Order: sequence, then C-alpha cells, then structure tokens
Amino acid sequence: MAMEPTTRVVPQVQEHLEALKERLLVMGGLAEEQVRLVSAALVDRDVDLAARVQAGDEPLNILHKEIDQRCVRVLALHQPVAIDLRAVLAAVKINTDLERVGDLAVNVAEAVHRYLQHPPVDVAERIPRMADLAQRMLRDALDAYVRQAVPLAEHVLQTDDLVDALKNEVSAALVPVMEASPAVIAPALDVILIARHLERIADHATNIAEDVIFMVSARDVRHHGPTA
Amino acid sequence: MAMEPTTRVVPQVQEHLEALKERLLVMGGLAEEQVRLVSAALVDRDVDLAARVQAGDEPLNILHKEIDQRCVRVLALHQPVAIDLRAVLAAVKINTDLERVGDLAVNVAEAVHRYLQHPPVDVAERIPRMADLAQRMLRDALDAYVRQAVPLAEHVLQTDDLVDALKNEVSAALVPVMEASPAVIAPALDVILIARHLERIADHATNIAEDVIFMVSARDVRHHGPTA
Repeated sequence: MAMEPTTRVVPQVQEHLEALKERLLVMGGLAEEQVRLVSAALVDRDVDLAARVQAGDEPLNILHKEIDQRCVRVLALHQPVAIDLRAVLAAVKINTDLERVGDLAVNVAEAVHRYLQHPPVDVAERIPRMADLAQRMLRDALDAYVRQAVPLAEHVLQTDDLVDALKNEVSAALVPVMEASPAVIAPALDVILIARHLERIADHATNIAEDVIFMVSARDVRHHGPTA
Repeated sequence: MAMEPTTRVVPQVQEHLEALKERLLVMGGLAEEQVRLVSAALVDRDVDLAARVQAGDEPLNILHKEIDQRCVRVLALHQPVAIDLRAVLAAVKINTDLERVGDLAVNVAEAVHRYLQHPPVDVAERIPRMADLAQRMLRDALDAYVRQAVPLAEHVLQTDDLVDALKNEVSAALVPVMEASPAVIAPALDVILIARHLERIADHATNIAEDVIFMVSARDVRHHGPTA
C-alpha cells in the first residue's frame, strides 16, 4: 500500500500555498484592525485605545517572521514554478508590506496620543475617511491576492488616488489654520503626520495590489502612474 | 565533447547571483546619488538641481523591474538552496527597498523645491548631516550584502538610532520657531517632512542590513529594537 512519492508533490505545494495565504489573511486582518482602532481612538478621543494600538504590534511582528520562514521553506523544499513561484514571491513582499502597515499604525497611534493632549483641531472628517479607505484597500488587496482577482486589484490602485488627494487636502487646509493660530501648531502638525502615515498605509495596499497583478498576469504595472 | 549538464549547475547559479549583486550595486549607487544631489540642492539653494532629482527616478524604476525579473528567473531555472536561496530572497527585498529610496528622494526633492520658494529656515546643519548618514548607511548595507559582512550590517543598525535622534531634534527645534513666527510655518513644515523622508531612507538601509544578517546567519534580528 506504499504511496507513489511523485503523486504527492503537487498537492503539497498547493497545501503550503493555501497555508501561506491563510496566514497572510490573518496578518492582514490584524493590520486592518490596528488601523480601525487607531481611527476610533482619534474620533472618540480615547487615549487608552491609542495606547492599546501602540502596544499592539507584537502579533504582527511574530507573523511576519513566521510567514517569511514559510516562504523560504516552500521555495527550498518544493521549488514551485510559474504562478506558484510568483505567488510565493508576492507573499514575501506582501508580508513586508503588512509588517510596515503595522509599524505605521503604531506611528499613527503615537501621533494620536500626542494630538489628544490638545483641544481638537477641525480635521473635517478627512482623517477617519482616509483610515476607512486605507482599511478597505488593504482588505481588497488581500482578497485580490487570495482570489487572484485582477479587477479588484485594479480597483485598489484607483482608490489610492483618492487617499492621496485627501492627504493633500489635509495639509492645504491646516497650514492657514496654523498660520492664524500658533496654539494649534503642535496638534495640527500631528494631524498632518497622521494623514501622511495613513496615505503610506494606502501605498502599501497599492503595492500589494500591484504584486497581485504581476502574480496573475506576469504583467508589471508598477511605475505607471496615471498619465498626468 | 558534449558537456555534462549537471556539472554546470552550480557555476550558473553563482554567475546569476553575481550579476544580481552587480545590478543591486548599480541601483544602490543611483539611489545614493539621488540622496546626495537633493541634499546639495538644499544646501546650495539650487532649484534646478532639486528639479533634476525630481525627474531622475526613471533609471531606478527600470532597474527595479529588471532585478525583480532576474530574481524570478534564477529561482525558476536554478532552484538555489540554503544561502543562495536566502541571497535571492534578500535581493527581492533589497530591490523593493532601493526603489522606495528612489521615491523618497523624489519626495525630498519636491519638499526642497517648495522650501526654496521661502527665505531659509535655520536647520542647524541637521538635514545635510541626516542625508550624509542615510547615504553612508545605504552604501554600507549594500556593501554588507555583497561581502556577506554581518559586522558592517550591524553597524548600519546602530547608525539608524542617530538618524532617528536627528529627526526628532529637527521637529523639536522647529515647533517653537513656527509658534513664534507664522511666516515660517510653510517652509518649516517642509523641513520637518524632509527630515522624516530622510529618516525613512535610513530605515530602508536598516531593512537591507537586517536582510543581510538573516541571509548570512539565517538569524532573524528583526523586531528586536534596542531594549529601552
């Protein structure tokens, strides 16, 4: 009743790839949750919640190492080719992106923590909207990875322009406020930093979406911004 | 006189790895040069030079794609193992880091361009010093990659703390200046952004150094900041 060893090779690669995807989804969920919580901390002026986000990076860091090791192992032991190889290389990159998203959520939490020491600055709903968009981009990009869904990945690329525009609006709106009232300079500066961190989170979702498009179609869409 | 195909496998992997390293060094040199030029543009108040850096990203983007393709090809065709596999995976990540450094140099150039529309803000030598350190970190990190030199990579990790401290000094020094004089708010904001971009360039050099340590020793030093 001995099994033919060769018949097991392909299923094994697939099993490892499925496990890799599942771990990336878990990591993406944690990263998303950090972004959601830090936005809530800002809106609800909840210092404790900001502190929780600041301290909540460790599970992401642990997963980051684990996923990296899984990628090395599947490449070393199973030598995947074609789309499977591209899927593992995409996982290496997505893993890095998600770990940075975790770092950025901590940076946002630090800025929110400082910001909450001051009376509120009118941020005109833009910050929570940016956080919502960044979260949705992360979710869609990972969903696109798991389902190899290029149209969804392309949708993420488009949403990034919206986040960029919001970030620019935040700075443009706050500079005159700062000029008119020196007392708000410190908190306004933190709002500008928060907007930039959120925009970088959206950039990481964009990176993931680009990796998905490359993985599925072997077409490199990077470095082709909108023709301006 | 037919050659034994198996005797050529190892030399071929080595040739590909050498070519990969050579291309990464070229890319690192270009990234470093962008950082050097944008710092000079700031110090010499040279708007044209800032514009040149803003437009100088394309060679890095082309190399980014080329190196990525080389990595896929060497994994697909030669299935390297052990340190060779880790070297290719490190190349995938280093390539991403260098491409981001190129983007950040463009961001710095944009901020320098805006900054130069205003009278100078006293930045106390800190910005060019940060740029120097970031450049040196990039050079050392890539040198460490090519020579598999762990002590040099560890030196890069230490230098990052210095850059972080300088970034914090820039913000701390400029907030009171902005509060005292609303006219400098816009240019001071750009100096703060420049400092943050340079700190992120240093972070990418740090990422590279961490990848080198992992590559050489298969030891994961990430997520072990200085015990504070």
